[in-house]
Amino acid sequence: MPQLTIRGIPAERIREVSQPMLEELAAICECGTDNFMIDCMETTSVFAGQRVDTYPFIEISWFERGTETRDRFAFALTKHIHAIGIEEVELAFKIYSEDAYYINGKRFNLL
Amino acid sequence: MPQLTIRGIPAERIREVSQPMLEELAAICECGTDNFMIDCMETTSVFAGQRVDTYPFIEISWFERGTETRDRFAFALTKHIHAIGIEEVELAFKIYSEDAYYINGKRFNLL
Amino acid sequence: MPQLTIRGIPAERIREVSQPMLEELAAICECGTDNFMIDCMETTSVFAGQRVDTYPFIEISWFERGTETRDRFAFALTKHIHAIGIEEVELAFKIYSEDAYYINGKRFNLL
Repeated sequence: MPQLTIRGIPAERIREVSQPMLEELAAICECGTDNFMIDCMETTSVFAGQRVDTYPFIEISWFERGTETRDRFAFALTKHIHAIGIEEVELAFKIYSEDAYYINGKRFNLL
Repeated sequence: MPQLTIRGIPAERIREVSQPMLEELAAICECGTDNFMIDCMETTSVFAGQRVDTYPFIEISWFERGTETRDRFAFALTKHIHAIGIEEVELAFKIYSEDAYYINGKRFNLL
Repeated sequence: MPQLTIRGIPAERIREVSQPMLEELAAICECGTDNFMIDCMETTSVFAGQRVDTYPFIEISWFERGTETRDRFAFALTKHIHAIGIEEVELAFKIYSEDAYYINGKRFNLL
């Protein structure tokens, strides 16, 4: 955590930008880069009777960090995605609860 | 948004029904069809020691629209899925918050 | 439901352990094993400029069952994952609402 689950952007493009992107996002979160997971999903998208390119979308799963941090995170992440030539991207933050997250069987809020 | 994330139904089947389905769902949401994303996920499912077909399941990610709209949306979506010969399908609605959703770096509730 | 959405663990490994795992999890939930879905997702992960193995992660989507059941569920699930040689795994529980879940178009809390 945080976990970036990506659709509609090739993993190869994300790989290119991943190092500076993670460094900036980790600084915003005040955690190490090794807390992050970046997973690109295989999807097939359809629209109006056609197969279409999947719209670039990133779901960020994390513990709530407040509006200011979220705004900065979203701005930085979007900047790096734009920098690899993806002109439009939407982000949604999904909140995991610390009492419903387990690392090797141990509840996070008890660690 | 709304975003339909589908597992257990081939994209090709969804493609066939996508145009009338989107028109009906967009009318229920009072938005344009181009607000929708339909993404079919690659999954491998297992049950009781066997590989099995993935159970047809659709997660709808959207902003909360209330029970009446949700009921109508679920009924219409299910009808279209049944019409392509998928006899059983389950739907779950996942709520994104307008203050935690970003389009090109800009927070949705400020757009 | 419950629905286990898995990334970073091959479906073949999950298949091997699925029968005893489901029996134990179903006993904890006091439901039948046939209520469960186990879906392994295709992902490509990156980190720090490299393609990397996806970190083992399971999202459990269910209706809220309280802390004690969740702790037991997490402990049992983790035990089975460790038993197939996956040394590290993280779990997150995602709550679906009974009034936003539909089976064949019928709202769950009305069934």
